[in-house]
This record gives sequence, structure tokens and C-alpha cells, in this order.
Amino acid sequence: MEHLLEVDMTSLDVQIRTVPKNWETLGGRLLIGRLMNEQVPPRCYPLGEENAFIVAAGLLAGTNVSSCGRLSVGGKSPMNGTIKESNAGGIVARTLARLGYRAIVVHGQARSGGPYLLVISRDGAKLEAAPDLSGLRIFETNELLKQRYGGKIAVSIVGPVGEMGLPNSLVAHSDGDGRSSRMSGRGGLGAVMAAKGLKAIVYLAEEGQPVPLTDNALFKTTVKRVVEKIQTTPQTSEVWPQYGTSLMIETCNGLGALPTRNFSAGQFEGADNIGGEHLYATITGRGGAGQVGHPCMPGCMIRCSNVYPHPDGSEWVSPLEYETLGLLGPNLCIDDMDFVAEVNYLCNDFGADTMELGSTLGVMMEGGLLAFGDAEAALELVREVGQDTLMGRLLCSGAEVAGKALGVYRVPTVKGQTMAAYDPRGIKGLGVTYATSPQGADHTAGHTVRASIDKRQAEGQWEVSLNAQITMGMYDSIGGCMFFGTAIGPDWELLCDLLNARYGWQLAPDDLSEMGKEVLRVERAFNREAGFGPAHDRLPQFMETEPLPPYNEVFDVSETDLDKLAEI
Amino acid sequence: MEHLLEVDMTSLDVQIRTVPKNWETLGGRLLIGRLMNEQVPPRCYPLGEENAFIVAAGLLAGTNVSSCGRLSVGGKSPMNGTIKESNAGGIVARTLARLGYRAIVVHGQARSGGPYLLVISRDGAKLEAAPDLSGLRIFETNELLKQRYGGKIAVSIVGPVGEMGLPNSLVAHSDGDGRSSRMSGRGGLGAVMAAKGLKAIVYLAEEGQPVPLTDNALFKTTVKRVVEKIQTTPQTSEVWPQYGTSLMIETCNGLGALPTRNFSAGQFEGADNIGGEHLYATITGRGGAGQVGHPCMPGCMIRCSNVYPHPDGSEWVSPLEYETLGLLGPNLCIDDMDFVAEVNYLCNDFGADTMELGSTLGVMMEGGLLAFGDAEAALELVREVGQDTLMGRLLCSGAEVAGKALGVYRVPTVKGQTMAAYDPRGIKGLGVTYATSPQGADHTAGHTVRASIDKRQAEGQWEVSLNAQITMGMYDSIGGCMFFGTAIGPDWELLCDLLNARYGWQLAPDDLSEMGKEVLRVERAFNREAGFGPAHDRLPQFMETEPLPPYNEVFDVSETDLDKLAEI
Repeated sequence: MEHLLEVDMTSLDVQIRTVPKNWETLGGRLLIGRLMNEQVPPRCYPLGEENAFIVAAGLLAGTNVSSCGRLSVGGKSPMNGTIKESNAGGIVARTLARLGYRAIVVHGQARSGGPYLLVISRDGAKLEAAPDLSGLRIFETNELLKQRYGGKIAVSIVGPVGEMGLPNSLVAHSDGDGRSSRMSGRGGLGAVMAAKGLKAIVYLAEEGQPVPLTDNALFKTTVKRVVEKIQTTPQTSEVWPQYGTSLMIETCNGLGALPTRNFSAGQFEGADNIGGEHLYATITGRGGAGQVGHPCMPGCMIRCSNVYPHPDGSEWVSPLEYETLGLLGPNLCIDDMDFVAEVNYLCNDFGADTMELGSTLGVMMEGGLLAFGDAEAALELVREVGQDTLMGRLLCSGAEVAGKALGVYRVPTVKGQTMAAYDPRGIKGLGVTYATSPQGADHTAGHTVRASIDKRQAEGQWEVSLNAQITMGMYDSIGGCMFFGTAIGPDWELLCDLLNARYGWQLAPDDLSEMGKEVLRVERAFNREAGFGPAHDRLPQFMETEPLPPYNEVFDVSETDLDKLAEI
Repeated sequence: MEHLLEVDMTSLDVQIRTVPKNWETLGGRLLIGRLMNEQVPPRCYPLGEENAFIVAAGLLAGTNVSSCGRLSVGGKSPMNGTIKESNAGGIVARTLARLGYRAIVVHGQARSGGPYLLVISRDGAKLEAAPDLSGLRIFETNELLKQRYGGKIAVSIVGPVGEMGLPNSLVAHSDGDGRSSRMSGRGGLGAVMAAKGLKAIVYLAEEGQPVPLTDNALFKTTVKRVVEKIQTTPQTSEVWPQYGTSLMIETCNGLGALPTRNFSAGQFEGADNIGGEHLYATITGRGGAGQVGHPCMPGCMIRCSNVYPHPDGSEWVSPLEYETLGLLGPNLCIDDMDFVAEVNYLCNDFGADTMELGSTLGVMMEGGLLAFGDAEAALELVREVGQDTLMGRLLCSGAEVAGKALGVYRVPTVKGQTMAAYDPRGIKGLGVTYATSPQGADHTAGHTVRASIDKRQAEGQWEVSLNAQITMGMYDSIGGCMFFGTAIGPDWELLCDLLNARYGWQLAPDDLSEMGKEVLRVERAFNREAGFGPAHDRLPQFMETEPLPPYNEVFDVSETDLDKLAEI
């Protein structure tokens, strides 16, 4: 029997409810979508008491199947104004499920005495005032909480940037080593959590118990099939464990889709210094705390994460990922991996998303505030992140706000959120996802880089994107990592076996497809009431008119095709 | 025979076209609405080459009837993202009409060699490169142009703020004394003009000729009726010539609708020091260049403008108006008229709208950047307007952007534009106008303060606002001032007589009503394609939930009523 934790921050009241019968098949992103539509007025102020802050585990969380412990954090986004689900790895989803909860739903707003800690045990949860933690950075907060509650905890923490109410603010979750390193980065959900009056959620992991399985034998044999899939898929067995996501620098540079100089070129001459091969060589060469093949979730066989060390071998930041490298490297014309690591470290500690920050810096460079390629000047600015200065605030207000204040036309956002490190003129299916995802520009909402279609043709991309978006809607609801999806491929019978063995259901692949579609439907329904329509399902105009070197493509998927995504 | 001047800044080409037969009855705001729908893609970037910058005279411009020489400036707004018509007095509409033109339509974008001057004579127009004027303030630009082209010119100028591409940037037009003091302030059309590559439009007034009248006798007798109306209406014959708009401080304070402390109260204890009586006493007391009853358009009998002098009698700023007093005074808890005058002077010279700036400062005060009531600190900030500093840019990015960067919830905007100096909880019909006008929050789009309805009741306000919006759509198209409308009242036969005598038409009052409705229809059509729907026809949430002292009203007009405005 699973439960929902309902927290009212206005009255400081916590209730435990059994997951209603008709909601039993809802997890992660789909659960967030349904809760938002039922409980949150779509026009509400994202940082007000009417918004909800939701932490939801995927349906397979807590089991021992590889790569299926993803966490969904949700609410109305102060960055986008849309519904938002921000997905992360780490141990929180697993811990939450093992404590007996499907999700935490936080309403209201603390009036005084905060910020608070929400401490979750197997028997329930309580709110503890922690004014001493107000304004503390994430890493020191994590250490203090470990001292206070013992080492065996998982935590979700908001940093100073979120406490300042800024749109580019994240929620940091524990990884398997107790680091606050797995980020719900996008859409400003850190500010939503802080606006509720929460500084951290503490999950007392040692009280956790294995989640029950209805059909042990089926689950066991299916997990074996998963292992085999992962072991026989080159990406999941060889590429990602060695290079993680970073080899995408080389891939995108080859495709001419590597955002360079604020999305004005698709290839970067310094790509080698910031790419996967260089990252691997640096980590293994420096040794010490450095690690490739680091699992973000315990038991993950894909292990795409890493620990990046200082030159002296001490730990610098974990993980250093493609999106961060791309948007803080080529996008700024900076080919210095240590620069990216330091910015990443500061963003993690103060609680800002590296992707939005990289894009914001790109817009600031375009606006003439600093020169492209000037790593020293960029780092000087980034040191203001989390400080209550005008620059500190503007840096964490998102690329779109920076663009308005600086009079910059070329702002790579959709629905207020910056694109990931793929120029959509070079991977047009991903451009369709950026344009039409209810989440704003978001690569994880429907990645198409491995789809078997000419990436530069306009025709048919809408269908590739739609399928990818449905697939990801489903994976984000069951808690499966998108790389896990690469190993599984079209074998959704396997996924059904896992879910049916876990819960005793009778799902068929079509039900999973329907789950993915339902995610998009409920998210679009919320957005529609919040004021989003076809005119918002478009890329920024400059990408429709400016050819992207070296292949000189524009984004030319027709509006008719883009509008097909609304008919799910 | 009237003409349109079509300017292509990309090719630096100017064409003169006769107004097409089926467009003959279109002037001012309606002409802008039709041109925008036919020639501008609604999703275009407001500061890009696809947007248009339009200067259009009302239908009665150039005649000698009092108060009917208003000018409409239009384009897609970089502040709102909506269609925008920004209305101003002064001599430009009259001059344009007397040179034989109904409107100027500027397309494209100058590639190099700019900025340019567009110099308009009776025989046509030419573009002259004026790189020496780049970045110059408005007043010095005006003086240089008078030296260059002789004193008898009218000019429209954009200042440094517009040249920096900032959303809060105005276009300054000449008044009858040759001052650059009549502002198309709202919606950032200064940046649109500058983005075209234009620094100023010079109208060679001495080449002007009286506009032809089809029925001289009818026009003459109708003008007499106008004179009588103005002379027998207390507002237009007594109140406005003495106090101008400033007495609205006392009125709104009495209604509990005077925006105080960033729209958190409706009465201000320092109102007397910033109100109409005090303004009158100061101007007449200081004497010198000071003047009440100053006409913004030659021949205007209402003369609501003024010249506000320094303590030594030298000219400080003209005019000092209610909206500026309200949003820089009570809204900031500052009761110092000289402070408002200095900020107004600086805004006029650098080219920013005082209303949006006052609201932005209010949001900054709410965000803790400076204290409410601290005039000295506010003035220090305002001295950065037009400077290429982060604060200078943020100050002119509009209240909504400032609110995002500062994490402020209580931002008094609709569709990205700040409200005028009337709290809509105290004058609910005006709240309907703010919410539903295609222009964003805009008092001139349909003022209801003098409507015979209880201002605090929710019921029926939609109809009052709708009628006011239709009326203003019509007046903004024929070029009549809204105060002129107060004198005319329901006697639209008189307006028909003026138009029919001028053009030889057969208009009846219903045609004028249709003209006003058509304005709203074409503007809504543009906005719809640009991405605006019912969710954007709403006031900021805090006004629906926070009671406004002293009458503790919330804005409670129903969404059903608000949505009726879309059915025109």
C-alpha cells in the first residue's frame, strides 16, 4: 500500500493518505501532471501559496532494476510559466519508495519561523523549523544535515539562489555517495520549494524497506533480461560507462549542431579540448578522486556519471556532463574544461542550473557585457551567483530576461526556457521537441539524435519528435532513465513485465503508450489554461532565418507540422 | 488626395503611394491596426526587420478644430509583445497632414551608415545619414535639428534608451513651442524606431498647406458647435485649463484608488503635496517660465498641459502630468513634486516613459533595492537611465522584467505593460480595460473614471469598459483627444459632420461606433496570432486577493465578464 504525503505549509500540517485506487497507476511525471490539473489554478503565481511543490517517484522506484530510480519534481515554473517536471537521478526516488511513499505534495506557504525541514520517516513526516539554515549554500547544508540526522539519509536541498526567488534555481538531491549532486535543474523549482518555506527534505533512508513485488519470479527473470539488454547494447555497455554524455561534444560537432558563440555556429574549433576524449583523459590522467563510470543511482549498470578531479586529484565536481560542457564551453567560445568545472561547482553549491546559466552568459556576451571566449571575465560574473547584487540576480533570472534587459534578439529559448546543447537547425526533430514540449525547450522531453532519419530534413520530424515525447512521457512516469530506454528499444513487453510483476497489473505495451500520451495531454491542458497556445509552440525567429554554419541549415519544419503535436 | 509614405530601411528606399480607395476612411489607430495585420507577421521579433514602425495622423489632423490633432505611433511592442498604438499630442499629426500624408510606414532595417534622419517635405521624403547624432539625448538632438533644418520644423526623435534597444523607450514629438515634449511613451516604440535605423523624423512644416475641406460651410458651423461644447463643459472650460490632469491626485485619493506603495494602498498621506492644487500653486507661485493652461496642440481650447518651472522661474519640464505624478509620487511614497519634475526631465531627455519607470521603481522598492519614500536613492538610480550600466538597463526593461530579476510577486502589469496611476480595485471598470485592452494595461484605451456607475461594484463594469474602449478606438482613429470626447459626450452627429465636411463622406454615428469596434477586432486578431488569449486578459493575481485599503476592495469582476470583451 503506497501513500501520498500531503504537506500544508500555511498550517504546518502533514497528512498521510493512501494513493486513491484510480490513481494507483500514476507515477512520476504523470502523477505530477494530474495533481497539477486537479489542485493548482493554472494562472497562479509560481512563487505563491496556490502553486504546489511536488516530489514524485517513478513507478519502478525502490526496486533493484537498473536505471529505473529517476525522480520527478514538479510545480508551475517561475521560469516558463508552464507546468514543469524536472527529472533527476540519485537516491531520493528509491528512498522515498522504500519509506512507503509515491509522492510528496506541498501546498501553501509558511508565514514565519522558517525555513523548515520536512523530515520523512516510515511512520510519517514532520516539519522542523531550521532558521539557522537560511541562506546556506547547498554543500554545507548537506553536511550539516548529515551531522544532524546521521549519515544514512537522502536529502533534497534548495540553495541561496532559490531562496532569493530567482527563476534559475534548482533542487539538489543526494547521489549514492551522499553528495548533493543530482539536480532537478530546469524551470526554477528551487524557488518554488523555497517559496513554500522549505529549505530541505530529509529522507531517513535507514528506515526504508524493500518495496513489495507481486510476482517475484517474473520480476527476477525480467531483471535478467534488462541486464542482458544493457550488456549487449554498445551505448550502454561501452560508450556511456567510459565517456558518459560528454562524447556528444564530438557527435554534435560532427553534425554541425554544437551550439557555438550563442547558437551562431554549429562547430567549434576548440571542441577537442572540451570533448569526451579529453574528459576521459583528464579524469583518468589526474586520478585521485576522479572517476569515470560513476553510477548516479545505486545499481545502475550504465554508470554515465563521473567525478571530475582538480589537477591535484582532489574532487572538484560530480558529474561534469555534456549539457554543461556544451553551453558553458562552445556556446561561450571557451575551450577550458577546468573553467566549466569551476562554474559547475559554484552553480551546484549556490543552486543554479548550469544550462540556463550557460545560455544566459551567451546572451550577455552577445549583448556586449563581456567578450566571447573570455573565461576570466565569465568566472568573475559567475562568482556573483547567489549574491544579492544586480548582476547576481540577473545571472539567475534566465536567458530570456537577460535578453530583454540587454536588448538581445538572438535568445535561444522556447516558452521562457533555454535550449539544451543541441542547435535545432542541425537536429530538426529535437527542434520540434524544443518547440512543442509542454516543458519549454527541453532535450529530455523527446530526444531524437539517435532516430533513424536525416537530421537536417524538415519532413517527418514531427512524427519522430512525437514518438520520442510519448516515450519519454512514459519513462518519466515509470522512473526509467532515457539511456535505459536506449537499451530497451521497442521491447515494451519487458517494461510491462516489470510493472506487472511489481504491482500485479495487466498492462500491455499500448497502455504504456497511452501513459505517455496522457502525460502530454494533461500538461498541455494545464498550459492552455495558463495562456499557452500554438504561437508559443515555435522556435525563436532567428533560427528560422539565420543559416547555421557549416551546413547552413535553417529550422524549416512547417507550422502545420508543429501544430500536429497538439493533436495527441 | 492623401498619401502614404513607405520607407524601406533595408534598401534605403522611399515610396509615395496614394491612400487606396478602400482605405480612405482609415486613420490613426485603425490604420495602424490594418497595416499591422496586413504587413507584419504577428510572431515577429519587435526589434527585427519584419516589424513595422508606423506614424499615422488621425482623420481630422491638419484642420483647425480644437483638440483633434492627436498622433498615433504603432508597431509590435517590445514591451508587451502585442500590437501597439501609442498616442500623443503635439504638432506632428497636423504637420504630417498639411504636408499631404496620412501616415509613414517604415519597414526593414538599415544595415550600416546609420542612424538616419527621415526628412519629409511636401514633395516626398529622403533618408539622410546622421551618424553624428548616434546616442545623443533628445533635447540636444532637437536643438541640432532645428539648427540644421531651420526653426520651422516638427520632429519625432528617439533617445539613447531606444537606441539601446530597451523596452521602456519612447518617441518624442514636438509641441507648438518647438519642445520635444509630447511623448509616444508606452510600449517601447522608441526601440522599434531605433531598430529600423532611424534617429529622427524631420517634418518640414513650412511647406505645409491647409488641408482641403469638401464642405467649408458645414465644417465652419460644426467647429462653432465644438467651441460651444468645450466652453459649456466645466471640465474642459475650467478644470483642465487650470489644473490639467493633476487634480486626479485629489480625485483618486478620495476614491481610494491612488496607487500608493507599489499598489498596496489607495490613499497617500502626502497626496496634498503632490496634487493638483499644489501643482497650480507652485507653477503660479514660482512664475517665470511656468505656465498653466498650456496647449499641447496649437489651437487647443482645453489646454490641459503646463510648464513646470525651477524655483528660480526657469523652465524645468513640460508637461508635468497626473500619471507621472501618481506613479513617481504616491506609488513610491514620495511627496516631493520637484523630485518628480527632475525624474520626468531626465526621462524625457534620455527617452524613457515616466509611467513604466515609476512602476519599475515601485517594484524595485518592493524588492528591497531601495526604501519606499527615499527620493534621494531613487534619483541616484534614475541618473543611470540611458547609461550602459546593468542598473540603467534594468530600469528601462519594464516593471515585469524587474519583478522577475528581483523575485517580486506584486508587479502591477497586464500583458507586460504597467498600469496607469489608478488602482483597478478602486475603479473596476478601468480594471476591465487594463485586463482586456489589446494594448495591455492602458488607461487611455477606455477610461471609466467619469462613468455613472458605482466604481467599486463588479457587475456591469464590462459593459462600461467596452463602451469606453469602442469610443477611444474611434477617437484614436479620428485624432480626437479623450478630453475632447468629454466635451462632445454622446453627440456623435457632430463628429460625423466634421468628418463628412472634411472628406465629403456620409458617415452616421453607427459608422463611428463600427470604427471603434473594428479597431478592437483588428488588434485582437493580431494579438491572437502573436499568442494572446483569455488567460492574458486578466489582472495580476494579487489584485484579486489583496484587499486595497482603505475600502478593502479586491478586483472581483468575473472571468465570464472579462471574456465578454473578446466578443466584439
